[in-house]
Amino acid sequence: MDCNWELQRDASVSSVAEWLISEVPPGSGIGFDPFLFSLKTREDYGFALMSSNHSLSSVLGNLVDGVWKERPAIPPDGLVRLPDRVTQRSWQMKVEHIRSEMAESPYKPTALLLSALDETAWLFNMRGGDIPYNPFFYSYTLLTMDEIWLFVHAHRVTEELKVYLNASCHGPLCVQLKDYDSVLGHLQTYVAPPGVKVWIGTEYTNYALYETITPEEKLMTSSYSPVLTTKAVKDETEQRILRDAHVRDAVAVIQLLTWLEKAVPGGKETELTAARHVDACRSKQQDSRGPSFETISASGPNAALAHYSPTAETSRPLTVDEMYLVDSGGQYLDGTTDITRTVHWGTPTSMQREAFTRVLMGNIEISRTVFPTGTRGVSMEMLGRRALWEVGLNYGHGTGHGVGNYFGVHEWPVGFQGNNIAFRAGMFTSIEPGYYKANDFGIRIEDVAVIVPKETKYGHNYLTFDTVSLVPYDRKLIDTALLSSQQLEWLNKYYETIRRLVGPELDRQQLREENDWMLKNTEPLAAPGSSAAACSSSLSLVLLLVGLLHSVV
Amino acid sequence: MDCNWELQRDASVSSVAEWLISEVPPGSGIGFDPFLFSLKTREDYGFALMSSNHSLSSVLGNLVDGVWKERPAIPPDGLVRLPDRVTQRSWQMKVEHIRSEMAESPYKPTALLLSALDETAWLFNMRGGDIPYNPFFYSYTLLTMDEIWLFVHAHRVTEELKVYLNASCHGPLCVQLKDYDSVLGHLQTYVAPPGVKVWIGTEYTNYALYETITPEEKLMTSSYSPVLTTKAVKDETEQRILRDAHVRDAVAVIQLLTWLEKAVPGGKETELTAARHVDACRSKQQDSRGPSFETISASGPNAALAHYSPTAETSRPLTVDEMYLVDSGGQYLDGTTDITRTVHWGTPTSMQREAFTRVLMGNIEISRTVFPTGTRGVSMEMLGRRALWEVGLNYGHGTGHGVGNYFGVHEWPVGFQGNNIAFRAGMFTSIEPGYYKANDFGIRIEDVAVIVPKETKYGHNYLTFDTVSLVPYDRKLIDTALLSSQQLEWLNKYYETIRRLVGPELDRQQLREENDWMLKNTEPLAAPGSSAAACSSSLSLVLLLVGLLHSVV
Repeated sequence: MDCNWELQRDASVSSVAEWLISEVPPGSGIGFDPFLFSLKTREDYGFALMSSNHSLSSVLGNLVDGVWKERPAIPPDGLVRLPDRVTQRSWQMKVEHIRSEMAESPYKPTALLLSALDETAWLFNMRGGDIPYNPFFYSYTLLTMDEIWLFVHAHRVTEELKVYLNASCHGPLCVQLKDYDSVLGHLQTYVAPPGVKVWIGTEYTNYALYETITPEEKLMTSSYSPVLTTKAVKDETEQRILRDAHVRDAVAVIQLLTWLEKAVPGGKETELTAARHVDACRSKQQDSRGPSFETISASGPNAALAHYSPTAETSRPLTVDEMYLVDSGGQYLDGTTDITRTVHWGTPTSMQREAFTRVLMGNIEISRTVFPTGTRGVSMEMLGRRALWEVGLNYGHGTGHGVGNYFGVHEWPVGFQGNNIAFRAGMFTSIEPGYYKANDFGIRIEDVAVIVPKETKYGHNYLTFDTVSLVPYDRKLIDTALLSSQQLEWLNKYYETIRRLVGPELDRQQLREENDWMLKNTEPLAAPGSSAAACSSSLSLVLLLVGLLHSVV
Repeated sequence: MDCNWELQRDASVSSVAEWLISEVPPGSGIGFDPFLFSLKTREDYGFALMSSNHSLSSVLGNLVDGVWKERPAIPPDGLVRLPDRVTQRSWQMKVEHIRSEMAESPYKPTALLLSALDETAWLFNMRGGDIPYNPFFYSYTLLTMDEIWLFVHAHRVTEELKVYLNASCHGPLCVQLKDYDSVLGHLQTYVAPPGVKVWIGTEYTNYALYETITPEEKLMTSSYSPVLTTKAVKDETEQRILRDAHVRDAVAVIQLLTWLEKAVPGGKETELTAARHVDACRSKQQDSRGPSFETISASGPNAALAHYSPTAETSRPLTVDEMYLVDSGGQYLDGTTDITRTVHWGTPTSMQREAFTRVLMGNIEISRTVFPTGTRGVSMEMLGRRALWEVGLNYGHGTGHGVGNYFGVHEWPVGFQGNNIAFRAGMFTSIEPGYYKANDFGIRIEDVAVIVPKETKYGHNYLTFDTVSLVPYDRKLIDTALLSSQQLEWLNKYYETIRRLVGPELDRQQLREENDWMLKNTEPLAAPGSSAAACSSSLSLVLLLVGLLHSVV
């Protein structure tokens, strides 16, 4: 960008609205490109600008594109179908399922419009490379009970893909390929005759398409399309391969932590070299497709910054005197991962140990909770914060988000926020409480867990979490005296699972040093001053006295 | 009602909508009296009827009133102002405060419309008797920066009240009395000139008034008016007197429980005699104004029915073989109370003990939780259910609601539901988890608590609950082995508080037997098999051996 432009990082709706209110005279109109706003985002702007007497008008034809002469072209390649070994449901099965949901809706929609990129990619079991770290491709889908229109950049669809999509026929399971840019015109044609009703999710539908359809032609009863809600529950194959991907991913993170423990005291490693190391370890794992987001590798005060990733200017050397946080993840053909570990290679302060332990307690309290099917994440999110709240600590971010199968690392609509849907067995979510002390250190403990059925003494249809991220926590930072007996039991069982699942994979990859590190770090933990310990000391006294008694007698 | 009418109990929006859909031909219109629907309720009906192609039209002039010849008149008396000893803020101070909130709003409202009865009653420190159990009177208020219009049945306002309200002058602190039925016309006149903006809460505003104001003239940014959100936080006087009312209320409930424990084995008491007894005990307490709702007195399977109150037909005899639940409350000039205790006079089953203990654990877990200012009840509501969920049990009602100072026993917008506002110090809420086994028994443990500031090790602006209902729980039903050490500690501290606060009042009222009962039932509880117990047995062994040793030597 030249000096005519100013870059704003982390701009939110409210900060943009504030800027608009201060810069644009009251009463004037503000234009926006409706293809770049979802219905929900447009509404949020409308609300933020409500008091300022500005009107918001959609302007077709992006004004920036008009002056952006050297804009890079859409990548011409990279559209692929997933291999059969990572899919259980063919795209035809998915289409039939979504059509059955349409048929069952009391509102009788005649069509379903998909404008979020992962909706179309999921429906057709296809992936692309248009968005860094996210294997999506530019696309829309319009699905009716007997037709399927897929809008993509036509030249990107190979002959093989055309065969895969039945692109040469006309029928309920033939995909009619349309050029990406023709979606608006096509939708206008579709809604012209009377009697149509287009089902759209109100969170993700793009505003340009939304405003093309009159209120009578729209069905807006759900925040998310049936594709997003169906996709949220992984099928058996997706669950199995996503668990597998996490085992290999654990190997890469254990490689990093083993290496850093040795290398950091040497004084030559930095946030950047550590980030590169974990990225390289992941790239060597089977089915790797690169990182799932830019690795956050942050030492000392840098770890307390939101959205920090190291650059040549900011990268701190790693030392035994600072805490270190690494939040990273991988894309694999069979799954997407996201894990955060926080470690200290020297002697942590007692406050650091307390904060770390309380963050861990939050992670465990969510993970071990038993809840009825249909409970929403937002109603149990506070379990991630409660141990921190008890001593007046907290964190300023969400507690978790869905993850995909070779998809987005933040996959909606699963998670712990107010607009996430209710948990059901087969959903995957991250669990990631934290604590950040400005200018000092940052702690986050993030695992991915799958929601699984749980047998209970009296009831049915209860669920709990099963953690699939499999890397031990820094023992040095755990104050077992703070843990409840249930928390300690959960932790030791989790460590057994790591040994059982990651041990064989470390063996298979002949990573002996890493295996030793893993075994050392998954030794069972015991509560100091626990009743067992206290009583056993009484018992020693008894035995001593018995011995004494014998000697006297 | 004669046979032309059919009574539906507990009708919900969805059940009424279902009935309408089945009875009214599609495409026809459904009329409703807009004075009987809030904006929110009207929207809920609109949503429920969306799929059925019915139109909803407001019809002014109630059609039932038209044929209801013998309708009882509005009570001609009973409008009173509160005495100074129970108020800290005069109505003039309240008006000034609300006007400052209007002035600070970025949306610059010119008027505030109050259509919920408790809004007007609160603003003017007045009470009436128009609704059974609720000391409200039919009224509306329209407040601007320099005028106050109060809409009431004019003949009910005594000369003394006119003086109190400055009803004879014109000015910012003079109340202009208007007839109750003139509110719609007056509002239409008010909104006729350009430039007005009427602030309304979207949850409670009545639909007739709402639809009179055009969208440009309305400010609808908040669910609740500033009166409701201000009223939710009790001032120092309100907090003090509401706590005092709960001490006297505890005396009445302890009288009931003491009496039942003696009387039930005699075999002559029933749900109805118990309900009458507790109502009579309350009526003798200072400043009593009757019950705050119809007493729920339910034995055995009746306690598992929602909204049950005994009648001559349903009343069960009380026996030592059934559990008994009593949910009751009082109106006092200084406060409103609501408390539920569940007891067993014989030998409870182990399942009853487990369920009771887990309900109690839910009550305690909420009560002892520490949380930052601004946390919403809905985000901690699951703490009331978690111990039940663990074994597959649950309950089908909310976990708590605000309570007032001589006001509604369900006082919005405080509580644990999705549309309740964030907790702040000075709010009062009930905490009432339960468990109901159909055709067998019902358990509910309900206390009122005030939200109070809590000092924490590291942070500021943290809150917790301080329970103001002061009646011990049935010891026979508590399995202390299930309680965590923190829960046990909370319980014993609560029992100390009961002794400290209720003991002197029982003394003062010369209720010696009840005092003995209270002392017996607030003895500290100890965990069986706790580490202290286990180690003390080891210690006995040591002492035994030491004794033996001495005797040998």
